[in-house]
Amino acid sequence: MPSSLPSESLPTAADVADAAGRLTGVAVRTPLLESDSLNRLVGGRVLVKAEVLQRTGSFKIRGAYNHICRLDAATRGRGIVSHSSGNHAQGVAAAAAMIGVNATIVMPADAPTIKVDSTRAYGAEIVFYDRYREVRDEVARRLAETLGAHLVPPYEDPWIIAGQGTVGLELAEQAAAAGARLDAVVVPCGGGGLIAGCALALATHAPGVPVHGVEPDAFDDTRRSLAAGERQSNPAGARSICDALLVPTPGALTFAINRRLLAGIVTIRDDDARHAMRAAARTLKLVIEPGGAAALAAVLAGRFDVRGKTVAVVASGGNVDPTYLAQVLAAPDASSGTNRS
Amino acid sequence: MPSSLPSESLPTAADVADAAGRLTGVAVRTPLLESDSLNRLVGGRVLVKAEVLQRTGSFKIRGAYNHICRLDAATRGRGIVSHSSGNHAQGVAAAAAMIGVNATIVMPADAPTIKVDSTRAYGAEIVFYDRYREVRDEVARRLAETLGAHLVPPYEDPWIIAGQGTVGLELAEQAAAAGARLDAVVVPCGGGGLIAGCALALATHAPGVPVHGVEPDAFDDTRRSLAAGERQSNPAGARSICDALLVPTPGALTFAINRRLLAGIVTIRDDDARHAMRAAARTLKLVIEPGGAAALAAVLAGRFDVRGKTVAVVASGGNVDPTYLAQVLAAPDASSGTNRS
Repeated sequence: MPSSLPSESLPTAADVADAAGRLTGVAVRTPLLESDSLNRLVGGRVLVKAEVLQRTGSFKIRGAYNHICRLDAATRGRGIVSHSSGNHAQGVAAAAAMIGVNATIVMPADAPTIKVDSTRAYGAEIVFYDRYREVRDEVARRLAETLGAHLVPPYEDPWIIAGQGTVGLELAEQAAAAGARLDAVVVPCGGGGLIAGCALALATHAPGVPVHGVEPDAFDDTRRSLAAGERQSNPAGARSICDALLVPTPGALTFAINRRLLAGIVTIRDDDARHAMRAAARTLKLVIEPGGAAALAAVLAGRFDVRGKTVAVVASGGNVDPTYLAQVLAAPDASSGTNRS
Repeated sequence: MPSSLPSESLPTAADVADAAGRLTGVAVRTPLLESDSLNRLVGGRVLVKAEVLQRTGSFKIRGAYNHICRLDAATRGRGIVSHSSGNHAQGVAAAAAMIGVNATIVMPADAPTIKVDSTRAYGAEIVFYDRYREVRDEVARRLAETLGAHLVPPYEDPWIIAGQGTVGLELAEQAAAAGARLDAVVVPCGGGGLIAGCALALATHAPGVPVHGVEPDAFDDTRRSLAAGERQSNPAGARSICDALLVPTPGALTFAINRRLLAGIVTIRDDDARHAMRAAARTLKLVIEPGGAAALAAVLAGRFDVRGKTVAVVASGGNVDPTYLAQVLAAPDASSGTNRS
């Protein structure tokens, strides 16, 4: 795989600012929240960018809307196809509905029911595939060809990355408005679109503040790719409860940005994500899904040390089935990292 | 009991505006949230004033801080006492800590653990009483006399009411900024301080918009008081899961305002509150405690009809034990009102 791309194909901070203008009145300017209890728990100041409060329950509508806006009328008229473990699906479905474009979404058969139902409720058609036996990119590409439709990628696209980057732009503005001097920003990392966009925005709007990614232990493709200097894949059959972060390999575009701008990657266990979901409900009063809680999990588990520091974490999504959330909330906090609560 | 008070003892919209100035940078300007899924569910537009995201997890710090700020230095120096089922306790404890005043809080022995622990974490002393055998006002008054301390009432005070009213002031400003024309505002009602303050603010900043209260079926003292034209008490031994809303009788001050400004009161069952907690977790990604969910519950259960309307509801607090929340989330939605989800 190519480990670098011509820089003219990469989005810039100006593309993020452009996306921010397009998203005004469309995406929610989600609050940057803080909890005295959470701060006491970790011995530092944690600012939480609450994308769980975003329309569709995750940041994904930002990139999806920005991408679809940039298509010409003829392309839009033929409809769009996308593939997603769920949050991008809802983002694309909602954006397509707002713009008036037909959408068909390829989803894994084991996607959380709440994500499937919500995607359908926005008016999209759903086509299922087997996450462990089929390659979703191929399923989606074949479907797009059959339908003559445009494929909206989940992260491997400049307009998508620029849209997701508005999370970082807002975060920088909100931290500055609150008088907070950030020591670091910590962001969940799956395909890498969110963190790449955030890193672009922060490099301009919060220069010098290091941006760290968080991956599940079993899906540490970006961590290994950064170490190797080229894109590495995850082993077939790897499992994690962080369904929003499970991709086969980093994107070429996203990795080209991330290798240049990220300060590093830390990893978390599934138990760390569950612990963070419990802490979020108790201290922040937020429902966060496992993958969306990855950055908070890294902080709470001590994988990323925030003692004495001011650190912003992105809580990227909250689309978790209530029955699963109930199981997580009912479980004891027995084995999660160094910080207990 | 007196059914009216001299109007000069009542707070005004100007007192609310004054409190808003004092609370800038102290209380969170909580977001007014909206969920496409929730709107679909009820067939109307519901704007949720998310006071669960307030410092201490409820609106109570607004009134407590405003009240303590107004005390003279000598009074502050002798410390304060307060009594509360939990949220006011945390609000007073946090406000006292910020201002540098010693606080002792009288709490019912069966208050949720999360509320007791959080109050203690703000540095307050806790004194317990039996909710069903002792009158908390008397316990607190005796304690204040013994300590020579100042008693901060939970709702029966102009500064408290004015502080809580900043919820309504912000709500009016945020709805206007979002271009939403409100058909009604629905607010949980316990002692009546929050709704009285909101009604004062809204009468000035959203004139003509009716304000409705919501009480638990078994604690409908304000509903009956409005009907009777004078304050009525709840029967001894009444029970509800809405611990934040359980008071023996409306306040004299709060009732004097509410009888003049409220459009009415609807009531909810405990099952309606549980249903609303589930819907809030799924659609809004918010943790709301039973009493804090009362207004949303009234909307979801069809007790307050929002079909085709734009209605703001106040989600007043989120301090619920995670294990209880887990029980509620795991339970089926079998018997709650006319709107299912």
